Amino acid sequence: MDRSEYWSHTVVGASALEATPFLIVDTTVMARNITLMQSECDERGVKLRPHVKTHKSTHIARLQLAAGATGLTCATLSEAVGLASAGVVTDLLVAIPVYLDEPKAALAREALSAHTRLLLAVDSVEILSSIAAAGLTTPGVGLMIEVDSGLGRTGLTPEAAAALALSAQVQQGALEVAGFFTHGGHAYSPGASAAAANDEIQSLARAVELAGLTGRADLIVSAGSTPTALLSASAPVNEERPGTYVFGDMQQVGLGQTDIGGVGAVVIATVIHSAEDRYVLDAGAKILTKDRPDWMNSYGQVIHRPRDQIVRVYDNHGVVRCAPGDASPKVGERVPIAPNHICPVVNLVDELVTHDPATGTTGRIPVDLRGHLS
Amino acid sequence: MDRSEYWSHTVVGASALEATPFLIVDTTVMARNITLMQSECDERGVKLRPHVKTHKSTHIARLQLAAGATGLTCATLSEAVGLASAGVVTDLLVAIPVYLDEPKAALAREALSAHTRLLLAVDSVEILSSIAAAGLTTPGVGLMIEVDSGLGRTGLTPEAAAALALSAQVQQGALEVAGFFTHGGHAYSPGASAAAANDEIQSLARAVELAGLTGRADLIVSAGSTPTALLSASAPVNEERPGTYVFGDMQQVGLGQTDIGGVGAVVIATVIHSAEDRYVLDAGAKILTKDRPDWMNSYGQVIHRPRDQIVRVYDNHGVVRCAPGDASPKVGERVPIAPNHICPVVNLVDELVTHDPATGTTGRIPVDLRGHLS
Repeated sequence: MDRSEYWSHTVVGASALEATPFLIVDTTVMARNITLMQSECDERGVKLRPHVKTHKSTHIARLQLAAGATGLTCATLSEAVGLASAGVVTDLLVAIPVYLDEPKAALAREALSAHTRLLLAVDSVEILSSIAAAGLTTPGVGLMIEVDSGLGRTGLTPEAAAALALSAQVQQGALEVAGFFTHGGHAYSPGASAAAANDEIQSLARAVELAGLTGRADLIVSAGSTPTALLSASAPVNEERPGTYVFGDMQQVGLGQTDIGGVGAVVIATVIHSAEDRYVLDAGAKILTKDRPDWMNSYGQVIHRPRDQIVRVYDNHGVVRCAPGDASPKVGERVPIAPNHICPVVNLVDELVTHDPATGTTGRIPVDLRGHLS
Repeated sequence: MDRSEYWSHTVVGASALEATPFLIVDTTVMARNITLMQSECDERGVKLRPHVKTHKSTHIARLQLAAGATGLTCATLSEAVGLASAGVVTDLLVAIPVYLDEPKAALAREALSAHTRLLLAVDSVEILSSIAAAGLTTPGVGLMIEVDSGLGRTGLTPEAAAALALSAQVQQGALEVAGFFTHGGHAYSPGASAAAANDEIQSLARAVELAGLTGRADLIVSAGSTPTALLSASAPVNEERPGTYVFGDMQQVGLGQTDIGGVGAVVIATVIHSAEDRYVLDAGAKILTKDRPDWMNSYGQVIHRPRDQIVRVYDNHGVVRCAPGDASPKVGERVPIAPNHICPVVNLVDELVTHDPATGTTGRIPVDLRGHLS
């Protein structure tokens, strides 16, 4: 059975008792994605530190650690605290520079008390000073200096990153530089992955060299995103931080990172209106999001009707234009939609409905880190 | 004090103990927005049925009912059930056609058991049949036939809407037509509101007339959106359903519906990176959303720096381009951002932080209908 038939018949059928719209995860695809990324990283001799912002689930974080991940990546301190309160205690990197004013410092201290190590992103003296001012100059805290490898978001040039690592402020504050990291997010357009991965390697190598830390055995040199994870896995890079790979999405398909068989999280919606040239789904921006890169022409793919375009999403409606010559599906029909970008979609649901193809049964995984914005 | 100073100093200062990013509501602006829309509707002799999808809060729904709203509008059956379980029992319209398969029928029966009246949107024989099949042909249920007044989403032409109201299916199913409704969502571009409001009035009038229901005193003729609510409030329209007015947002400012003084819900974020031409906030698509109409050039407005543009949002980063010649704010500074479209923003937070300008204190309102997608 091909994937489109699988989703539109098998999975839709198995989940008939769920009220649409909902997000359903194929547990076999997810397990395969977790195992595959781990074994590819193992083969290349790099550590894997998956990003939890994609799944926002302590259950799935545990699966990744059990498969061999050596730690986890978070986007926020409250994700770190949430992991800890669920008992997921690990070596943790918060991969966005957090300015520790008093409420954030309290979150950082709470996270530190539970995790085996807390790595904090730094790309300015202000962030650095806020970490020192919060009293986080204790064993267990490490600084990860962010290098901008071409995305133009946060991070410093390799030169400035090295200078920050060597600065008096680090020395005086007794803050330990645990390593350098970058996110080659400029990989997110077709054909750009290889060059972005090379940028990651080169800019990290330059920062390490300029900081005079080339020989330090325990130095973390961390790169990564799902498109670049395996392409940038070579020295001095010794750690990768992909997130999206666990589920896959249409953006990853468009980037050539996976095919539709690797997409394991799909929104099931119901057709509520059917006209000659269009149909309307009960799934809109509040589950599909408005995430649509410039190089894509639809807000997600109706899996078994790949020529249809989701042309507009309102809060709770999705408007789909039929491919020329094709008839619209009937009102009441359930359709599976592969989202463009799975991370913000997961963050809109309270639980993942799961489908186990081996048994044909459905289950649930709570998205217990949903929200956790600060 | 002007509004930008108010938000960037007074509100930011009062909420210093909250970890950013968070959504803060000025309770005075919200109260004024509720009162004003109610009194404007009262003056015009139309009923007000506010849309709860904007605030997703039973507390705010109660404020609207206390101010004189005669019922509420929902986007989903689970919002209706959520209102009921919190004790908000009212005359309720679910304003999107819902195909009642078994799980949705169960939700509809649960909603019906609590509300004083449950009005269900219908725009096809399939939706109609599903209502009859679910056994919802009981007193307390009313059909609201949806008319498409120009948006091209759900709904029928006035002719087809009238035919559906008169159809054998309605008669045989013993389903009561409570009225007609439309949503002039094509008002959502600059200068389009007046024409869209007129389309609402004309297409509803035509449907009522063709259905031979002109004289029925209890017929509900419902129009509305925030931009058209007061423009379409004339016979035969006797009910309006705006949602966004309760908070306001930059889209409403752009449409001329309110000015910045009417915007009462603002995201507070912290600057985490500052460069010459840009700065980066700890607020991205997971709180600001990627909602940006074609006619707007920013993902929300940095209130006190209106010439800056939020040019890119990642999951947890917002990248802001400084206006030419302006210096970037410093790392650690808190900035207030008025969202483009408040409805999906509210749906991303678990609670609204509130600021009461009279006392200078902050509080909280739970977004207890957040999610509730089905």
